Amino acid sequence: MKVFVIGAHGNVGRLLVQQLKEKGDEVVAGIRKPEQAHEFSDMGIETAEFDLLGRPEEMGVLLDGFDAVVFTAGSGGKTGDDMTLLIDLDGAVKSMQAAEIAGVKRYVMVSAMHAENRNRWGDQIRPYYVAKFYADEWLRHRTTLDYTILEPGALTFDEPTGQISTDDLEGGRIARADVAAAAVAVLHEPATIKRTIPMKAGDTPIEAAIR
Amino acid sequence: MKVFVIGAHGNVGRLLVQQLKEKGDEVVAGIRKPEQAHEFSDMGIETAEFDLLGRPEEMGVLLDGFDAVVFTAGSGGKTGDDMTLLIDLDGAVKSMQAAEIAGVKRYVMVSAMHAENRNRWGDQIRPYYVAKFYADEWLRHRTTLDYTILEPGALTFDEPTGQISTDDLEGGRIARADVAAAAVAVLHEPATIKRTIPMKAGDTPIEAAIR
Repeated sequence: MKVFVIGAHGNVGRLLVQQLKEKGDEVVAGIRKPEQAHEFSDMGIETAEFDLLGRPEEMGVLLDGFDAVVFTAGSGGKTGDDMTLLIDLDGAVKSMQAAEIAGVKRYVMVSAMHAENRNRWGDQIRPYYVAKFYADEWLRHRTTLDYTILEPGALTFDEPTGQISTDDLEGGRIARADVAAAAVAVLHEPATIKRTIPMKAGDTPIEAAIR
Repeated sequence: MKVFVIGAHGNVGRLLVQQLKEKGDEVVAGIRKPEQAHEFSDMGIETAEFDLLGRPEEMGVLLDGFDAVVFTAGSGGKTGDDMTLLIDLDGAVKSMQAAEIAGVKRYVMVSAMHAENRNRWGDQIRPYYVAKFYADEWLRHRTTLDYTILEPGALTFDEPTGQISTDDLEGGRIARADVAAAAVAVLHEPATIKRTIPMKAGDTPIEAAIR
């Protein structure tokens, strides 16, 4: 499977491209700045500069010929930062439109736990949740993409356990490496199309939990 | 007609409530802070505190029994201000949901010229346009409201002329008092339901232009 990862230089993104390569997928790391390329070329991974502030038509050219796109870019969710609107919301939606322009049907969004439920947004990163909510809603209702939305809990740098829970009743934490592994599993499991999957650290092996 | 104006203390809002009252409509001025009330009570206009950071269910209680809602609130569109996301986007959408909860079908949104066309957003207030775009799109596609979206050009404090153009081919300027007059005309013209109407200063009398 030929996968384009948007936000490959992020903390989930760099784990994801490594895991995809290890699994034998063909992966291109979408990066923001040319100086981010060497980290990937050192691992034998191709890169492409992908500007989320650009136009969908420009982005679409870069996605031509891929089987799937994963969006795991993030502005960082800082408060008082226009990038939340421009990257996490409009940048994400433009990348969906780019996938449609390029004819790439499969689109996996790395979102955030409870992004779909305004009543559960924490006050501190509420603007980030607003952006994720409207981006996810666009993906569900305004595209014809074969999407999957992943909603991980609070991201940690813990060692991966290879096990998660997809019970969304309570908040929770999850290692970034396990989120990356879940994204890999989702890409290879068509039953996850049109699904929103909450996830936190748990005790079910990832591939089984995803199925 | 009983009209609730969200953002009544704003520069368009305060002109709108005055004009509605002069036309014989029953109007309630939705304000953000209690200290904004006296300006309206001095004119014999009822006020209600309407918190766009609150929940749709709370807002809905205030809209109960009205024939129409006009949204003309704005965070000011300052860059680097989370209020763009929280007010112009999510606040606006929550007010639509509140109208639906209250059974108020008619909803008039004061948006901005070219808000529907990403290629024409100015760089300086691009975050504001992002917020308006997704709010307007929600109104069009995710509600069952009888909406009208007004897209005025750059707002001025010029004397009103009572005349506008609804040609959207070029940008333009328009007096806030003429935008308010257009909103009044739209509320009384059912043919404007489900329409997006660009407007700038021009030479067609407002009621004729709206028809």
